[in-house]
Amino acid sequence: MSDRIIRANESRRAFLKAGALTALAGGVLAACDKESNAQVASKKPATDSDQSGGSMAAHPVTPTATSAAEQMDRMHEAGIKAFPAKTAGKGNQLLEPKVVGGVKVYELTARALKWETSPGFSVDAWAYNDQVPGPQIRVREGDRVRVVLKNELAESTAIHFHGLELPNDMDGVPFITQPPVKPGETFTYEFTVPNAGSHMYHSHHNAAIQVGMGLLGAFIVEPKSPRAIERVDVDYVMVLNDGSHGYTLNGKGFPATEPLVAKVGQKVRIRFMNEGLMIHPMHLHGMHMTVIDKDGWPQPAPWKCDTLNIAPGERWDVIVNCTMPGTWAFHCHILPHAESQHGMLGMVTALVVQK
Amino acid sequence: MSDRIIRANESRRAFLKAGALTALAGGVLAACDKESNAQVASKKPATDSDQSGGSMAAHPVTPTATSAAEQMDRMHEAGIKAFPAKTAGKGNQLLEPKVVGGVKVYELTARALKWETSPGFSVDAWAYNDQVPGPQIRVREGDRVRVVLKNELAESTAIHFHGLELPNDMDGVPFITQPPVKPGETFTYEFTVPNAGSHMYHSHHNAAIQVGMGLLGAFIVEPKSPRAIERVDVDYVMVLNDGSHGYTLNGKGFPATEPLVAKVGQKVRIRFMNEGLMIHPMHLHGMHMTVIDKDGWPQPAPWKCDTLNIAPGERWDVIVNCTMPGTWAFHCHILPHAESQHGMLGMVTALVVQK
Amino acid sequence: MSDRIIRANESRRAFLKAGALTALAGGVLAACDKESNAQVASKKPATDSDQSGGSMAAHPVTPTATSAAEQMDRMHEAGIKAFPAKTAGKGNQLLEPKVVGGVKVYELTARALKWETSPGFSVDAWAYNDQVPGPQIRVREGDRVRVVLKNELAESTAIHFHGLELPNDMDGVPFITQPPVKPGETFTYEFTVPNAGSHMYHSHHNAAIQVGMGLLGAFIVEPKSPRAIERVDVDYVMVLNDGSHGYTLNGKGFPATEPLVAKVGQKVRIRFMNEGLMIHPMHLHGMHMTVIDKDGWPQPAPWKCDTLNIAPGERWDVIVNCTMPGTWAFHCHILPHAESQHGMLGMVTALVVQK
Repeated sequence: MSDRIIRANESRRAFLKAGALTALAGGVLAACDKESNAQVASKKPATDSDQSGGSMAAHPVTPTATSAAEQMDRMHEAGIKAFPAKTAGKGNQLLEPKVVGGVKVYELTARALKWETSPGFSVDAWAYNDQVPGPQIRVREGDRVRVVLKNELAESTAIHFHGLELPNDMDGVPFITQPPVKPGETFTYEFTVPNAGSHMYHSHHNAAIQVGMGLLGAFIVEPKSPRAIERVDVDYVMVLNDGSHGYTLNGKGFPATEPLVAKVGQKVRIRFMNEGLMIHPMHLHGMHMTVIDKDGWPQPAPWKCDTLNIAPGERWDVIVNCTMPGTWAFHCHILPHAESQHGMLGMVTALVVQK
Repeated sequence: MSDRIIRANESRRAFLKAGALTALAGGVLAACDKESNAQVASKKPATDSDQSGGSMAAHPVTPTATSAAEQMDRMHEAGIKAFPAKTAGKGNQLLEPKVVGGVKVYELTARALKWETSPGFSVDAWAYNDQVPGPQIRVREGDRVRVVLKNELAESTAIHFHGLELPNDMDGVPFITQPPVKPGETFTYEFTVPNAGSHMYHSHHNAAIQVGMGLLGAFIVEPKSPRAIERVDVDYVMVLNDGSHGYTLNGKGFPATEPLVAKVGQKVRIRFMNEGLMIHPMHLHGMHMTVIDKDGWPQPAPWKCDTLNIAPGERWDVIVNCTMPGTWAFHCHILPHAESQHGMLGMVTALVVQK
Repeated sequence: MSDRIIRANESRRAFLKAGALTALAGGVLAACDKESNAQVASKKPATDSDQSGGSMAAHPVTPTATSAAEQMDRMHEAGIKAFPAKTAGKGNQLLEPKVVGGVKVYELTARALKWETSPGFSVDAWAYNDQVPGPQIRVREGDRVRVVLKNELAESTAIHFHGLELPNDMDGVPFITQPPVKPGETFTYEFTVPNAGSHMYHSHHNAAIQVGMGLLGAFIVEPKSPRAIERVDVDYVMVLNDGSHGYTLNGKGFPATEPLVAKVGQKVRIRFMNEGLMIHPMHLHGMHMTVIDKDGWPQPAPWKCDTLNIAPGERWDVIVNCTMPGTWAFHCHILPHAESQHGMLGMVTALVVQK
């Protein structure tokens, strides 16, 4: 086992060389260095003699074991110190429309590229406008919208606006509501935005492959009349995925995930969207989440939780009242989606509440 | 890869030869042939020259790639054109009881058979009355019911009425509430139906195998006093399964699944029931679902969604107000349960809203 | 197949030799022996002659098949008769604090041991105070609590109090909120208990391994002002797990799981907690569950179900009104988590409602 860990440690070093040890303004992850009201007491050296016998006999803390334990800790520490790590490319960037005759026009070009999910680790991706997730479209209930899809992939595609209640011929399902958009073709969707909420757009052709490869994005519809509970300081979209790109939040795996940042007293809205193939129960440390919307529809009464199970295709909107200062781990609670012996990975980020 | 796709295409042809290219009255899937307000513009032929270079270099649209893309499209089209495809056998048919002295008597015979899940594809099944799912039992709260189970299988079995609050000796768990019903034996359950809602009956002996093989069915209990929200035009049971028969809705995989059909302005109730081993987040295109019941019990307040996660053993009842005409895809959003490179499969059907 | 079953039967015998055929006072599982209002009728001997032909031809009930069926039944019966089987060790035992200057002090020592999950079947475990789950901590909202963690493992660890809204430096995430607690070290957590509900404590370092190995427990916070619905006769914690210890309820697999026992007319509260990596839809036979809390927070309105899907990291509290006497199966409805051809296993217990 120590052999395996040493090799992993070496690959972690390569990994860290590639990534920048970026520190967020104010020091996101300094808490573990400062004085705390916790006490580390009675550091009792673990020797063979005082550990032999008893239930520990099968797991003696030999110098080798201690060394393996310290190597494991160093890998964990390095990953956390690297957060938030820089990578090439950023998904889910707000896309400003061209306004043409009162119509908001969005151009989406689907094509293949390499996508860096975590420092030094790149995957084959198919993406809209070279972003995974594709650029965020954010409109208002009642807007007239045109989405121009240009297909530069080697296979046909189409866009389904998941959650929007559109006329049938705008539904984006090849051979049911439209012809497939072949390589080299352009297809134009146009509609009046019918229903508010956190929605998605993604491929609906060979979708088990195409969505996994990155052909997906957030489609946010702001309501004409926001509810009081929707008045927040920070509005954050979190797209979950688990396909060939690994376990990702907005197209990146820890430590390249983006922290959520707010100040004490602020309210944060998080719009969870699952574009993957597995459930992801997202757990926020330190503060509860108040669930307000499911798939863009208000829940009859908001309800509280700290772990919210998000299934493929679902969107859940929650509000966090940032009452507790600190850096709070925020991760999928299917633990192998968030950690290995080599440290945190994949679906981990942090909510940083600044004083 | 093109090799693999060509072979798949051949098997698709065999598949289509076996299936009938049935068209539903009115043309379920004609939308993609008619004039639409979408525009396919600037069909730019994909040649080697205009695709070479840039980020497409790694995925050039060569004649080979184009051809593979077109083969993929043809397989997708063929699957959809075949829907709803004919197969031998139909499950979940309403079973009319014999009424004996005021008691509704249902006879269920468990035996082995071959079951055609999609055109040309048959599996070994164990079924009640030669149907997968077994015949639908539909009674009213307070009815006196007798279920006579005849076991013609090669192993023992028993029926658990999942969701009904019955006296313990009617609970159907061998060695806890009754002896197993051995091969050749007959066992009689009799009870007064206690609670309304969407329930199930299935084997509770060697059940991981027996339920997967098909020993399951819907047990619907209509309430004495229906709520206003329950007054619907179409009442549809959708049993989800994912065992040795593949991904199925009411015992069939796409394109042999049955479409739901309604007219604009009608209300459809869908009773989801998961008899499988995995979650299935069912996504309806075009219109939301209003969730009214969980496991046959009213939710305190109805709530809306477009993707509903249904776990094994759960039942969820929803209402769809059919406001939008068209053929709407309706599928599990774990995408490999619904599609492959060879087209749609498994847990896909459509809600057809006719004008 | 009969070969396989015979071998399994032999291993079942070894299994039963190790386990005690314990009977709960009053006879938990006697129902199948007593007179019942069900009738086993027309026991038709299954011979070759009357089974040949028809749809049974492919599965003739030959003497060999009958014998295999009977062997299967015997294994099922033996497992159920063994329930609740004795094993060494019991997890989730209430831990009485030492009270020091008004502070409730809990000492938790993490170390390795062998843990018997079902009769004769032991696994490597890492546990708090030699229990899987660790000892139950039960305090009251507003209590001052000190938890002293002593690490006698061969690797570092830390405790996260999952669901408690603690100051950041008590959050238990190495390198974010505290240093790791190395082998031989002791770390002290101290805080005023902020929020009521069903919470958990577990490792948050190399947690995908450490939690799976057993470093987890229930942390119950009783509210200062209980709601009327919380006044129950029996309060039961059910920790679900599915890691290297197999499918377990409170650290044991069937038939070594503990039955829930109540009397007719009593109310039982069940606090489900999922410490595993998979969902577990828990199904109670015979009576519905009323869901009152999610992650320790009241649901806006209680709602009813008979199958409750519990995802990793989630806690759900339910109330059962014990109206129906009898022994009621209570199990995960992902059937392979609860049964095989060799009988019930893993995530199965019973709610015994005594007259």
